[in-house]
Amino acid sequence: MNLKNADILSIDQFEKADIAEIFSVAAAMEPYAHREKITRVLEGAILGNIFFEPSTRTRMSFATSFQRLGGAVYEVADLSSTSLVKGESLYDTSRVMENYVDLFVVRHPTQGAVQDFAKATSRPLISGGDGTGEHPTQALLDLYTIMKEQDRSFDQLDGLSIAMVGDLKHGRTVHSLTKLLSLFKNIRFTWIAPEALKMPDSILEEARQLGHHVHQTEDFKMGIAKADVIYMTRLQEERFTSKEEARLHRGRYSLNRRTYEQCCSPKTLILHPLPRDQRANEIDMDLNDHPALGIFRQAANGIPIRMALFAMILDVYPFK
Amino acid sequence: MNLKNADILSIDQFEKADIAEIFSVAAAMEPYAHREKITRVLEGAILGNIFFEPSTRTRMSFATSFQRLGGAVYEVADLSSTSLVKGESLYDTSRVMENYVDLFVVRHPTQGAVQDFAKATSRPLISGGDGTGEHPTQALLDLYTIMKEQDRSFDQLDGLSIAMVGDLKHGRTVHSLTKLLSLFKNIRFTWIAPEALKMPDSILEEARQLGHHVHQTEDFKMGIAKADVIYMTRLQEERFTSKEEARLHRGRYSLNRRTYEQCCSPKTLILHPLPRDQRANEIDMDLNDHPALGIFRQAANGIPIRMALFAMILDVYPFK
Amino acid sequence: MNLKNADILSIDQFEKADIAEIFSVAAAMEPYAHREKITRVLEGAILGNIFFEPSTRTRMSFATSFQRLGGAVYEVADLSSTSLVKGESLYDTSRVMENYVDLFVVRHPTQGAVQDFAKATSRPLISGGDGTGEHPTQALLDLYTIMKEQDRSFDQLDGLSIAMVGDLKHGRTVHSLTKLLSLFKNIRFTWIAPEALKMPDSILEEARQLGHHVHQTEDFKMGIAKADVIYMTRLQEERFTSKEEARLHRGRYSLNRRTYEQCCSPKTLILHPLPRDQRANEIDMDLNDHPALGIFRQAANGIPIRMALFAMILDVYPFK
Repeated sequence: MNLKNADILSIDQFEKADIAEIFSVAAAMEPYAHREKITRVLEGAILGNIFFEPSTRTRMSFATSFQRLGGAVYEVADLSSTSLVKGESLYDTSRVMENYVDLFVVRHPTQGAVQDFAKATSRPLISGGDGTGEHPTQALLDLYTIMKEQDRSFDQLDGLSIAMVGDLKHGRTVHSLTKLLSLFKNIRFTWIAPEALKMPDSILEEARQLGHHVHQTEDFKMGIAKADVIYMTRLQEERFTSKEEARLHRGRYSLNRRTYEQCCSPKTLILHPLPRDQRANEIDMDLNDHPALGIFRQAANGIPIRMALFAMILDVYPFK
Repeated sequence: MNLKNADILSIDQFEKADIAEIFSVAAAMEPYAHREKITRVLEGAILGNIFFEPSTRTRMSFATSFQRLGGAVYEVADLSSTSLVKGESLYDTSRVMENYVDLFVVRHPTQGAVQDFAKATSRPLISGGDGTGEHPTQALLDLYTIMKEQDRSFDQLDGLSIAMVGDLKHGRTVHSLTKLLSLFKNIRFTWIAPEALKMPDSILEEARQLGHHVHQTEDFKMGIAKADVIYMTRLQEERFTSKEEARLHRGRYSLNRRTYEQCCSPKTLILHPLPRDQRANEIDMDLNDHPALGIFRQAANGIPIRMALFAMILDVYPFK
Repeated sequence: MNLKNADILSIDQFEKADIAEIFSVAAAMEPYAHREKITRVLEGAILGNIFFEPSTRTRMSFATSFQRLGGAVYEVADLSSTSLVKGESLYDTSRVMENYVDLFVVRHPTQGAVQDFAKATSRPLISGGDGTGEHPTQALLDLYTIMKEQDRSFDQLDGLSIAMVGDLKHGRTVHSLTKLLSLFKNIRFTWIAPEALKMPDSILEEARQLGHHVHQTEDFKMGIAKADVIYMTRLQEERFTSKEEARLHRGRYSLNRRTYEQCCSPKTLILHPLPRDQRANEIDMDLNDHPALGIFRQAANGIPIRMALFAMILDVYPFK
């Protein structure tokens, strides 16, 4: 695979061997991610970190990754205070900004808008998430985390059993992660969601067609038993048309230490794309110091993964 | 001309030879602007990019230009979330911030405020636009674009025929560009605007006194015929006291491919200071891929022009 | 003292010798602060400049200080547009962000919140002010300014006479500066405030117990006479529960050239943590060019002080 000058818009664009390569470059980035080594391979390069929707952690993770490679970051995070209020099209925004940056990261609340932005420009672009669509780099760092946390080799991801819990309808991270895991063999998905928030049918079809085992349930305790990985998600309240409807589901599934120890084997890894919503308490604070709680190391893994993508797209790896 | 430590506040401060020099430095900046070459001449220097009024493109263009020279950028873009709400004067803001930066770029909605900010500080300052006043760096990049796009030498700008269209009353870019072109000989201005949005009289007087030809009309098609350059502008709706009045003029002049091909010679260059307002459609999307549409290359030219000013003001050109 | 990897949360954590050491490192930073020398000792390092409350000058001062050492800055200044609206706890914010930065600066409107943020993370953290609590780096730069402006040696700070004026109840800078001065001998405090805005009792007790002289008064002119330093403060209107109550005190104490020349010796130094509120006119504009007005040099001194702390915490001083 050659990612030089490529866009990263969807997990669909990757084959299994591509993922292996990205993970191998990510592993090489680790000492730079933790600043044990310093590089300036991206000296003089500028990242346009363009967010049409609130975000802190994803935005900051991309920015840090670029800076750790020696590049500079320019952020536009509050597009309401910009020329969009003056009636500018997304096409123009993209074509103008491409003169000011070497690479884009774009998040947008509307599904398809990131693709439109990418189409307008000749600069490479990484999606930072589009509406309820995809969030490809999150899926990459999620899988990288599973591999590292469970001491699996890449091929030992075959046969993984994963429970995905919560708002599977709106959560773009579970959409992308399901696609990514589907590249492997014999994955055992358990999707735990209320009827109204089930995983979209198209994703179900695709996973089944590829020969994976999918079990759907509303029963949390039954669902998480025997999973290698529990992937909790936040209720995406901002995606609901009615706040009252969103509130109905708040707190529906909550994992605490007692439930975990009662239902799961001690090696079961707990992940969450973050932020945790403390009003809904998807993962209780009493698990904060539990070794199975991988959520903060998961956040940390975003850095080497995103550094790897930057380095491959801008063609500076291996470092001279 | 020696721009060392100088403020850039108005086109009035330049003579024709100064412009030639800035353009020649800008040409030398091009390989750095496109990152074909890398420099760190401004290492350790900090730009204070201070915007009291929304802007993306101008702000980003200044920031990129400074970063391409190896400098760091500190931005204050939303002054409402700052100490101005605590009752601070512009004088104090300027005197305090000067301790944190090596050079200022300032935009302000009130005419004269940028000058006041500059007067308070001993640091050099470049105006990023003040109210309906001036926008000197935009005029420089506009003229630089005309020269490049039409393969003219600097002296071949004499005799240029330019049609300026739209909100000529509030548009500070046409004010500055008219002043700049007036340094040359025998410019043929055609100003196309509704009666209520005509170019201010003071600018008209000045252009005529300098011996240029000015024709004012409300007739778009007649006006743009025979122009070497059509300079479309956006209706500055935020400058109107009444929204209803602004709406009256929206969409008054719109250039599309058909009109262009019908009225203009194929070499006629289309410019616009951007953003294009898609509600008003000053330049139709059907011209997006037309070679005469110079608007995105025009935006790109902001980088070498602003790099040139930074390098001259901070006295790092020629690079060692 | 070894500040390596330390948090800076309160003046209480310092002994007198520590302050002397910080000031000595700050003095060594001066040529870098003014960019007479350039260093990149913090190359590749990232500062997380996290402000949960509006600020320009403090935020910018920390950012500049880090950049002058060659580091990069990532700012989160408007936490409302972030995942806090998605229900994230301060604990999670701290633990997630620690993966993206090498050092934190945090300001928060709630007293104790900065400490909570620091407790959650293993990264070093410098307080940028918490509610009406403390603002330790401001106190350091205030004292450093007094020393420099009055040509005192460190030990000559003993016996200083200082008048603190205004909203002494809510002003965290006067709380921290009082604590800091209390490390010296025989300080003569004059606290000038309306009854409702007096210095908190706990701070009064502490200063008296340490043997300092404290005089409290509402009489401005009497209070500032014989002071070596007049420390004016802004009415912290945003800390009042009722705007009407705040307005009652606005403009209560105002220092102008006439009052200054009438009451004070010509060597009396005028300080203010800034911003000056021009509605309240704590220090009149007619003193702007007076040599006794130290407020802008005071703002400038924030740079070497903060550079010193960064360099000591990240263990890069002395520079190699």
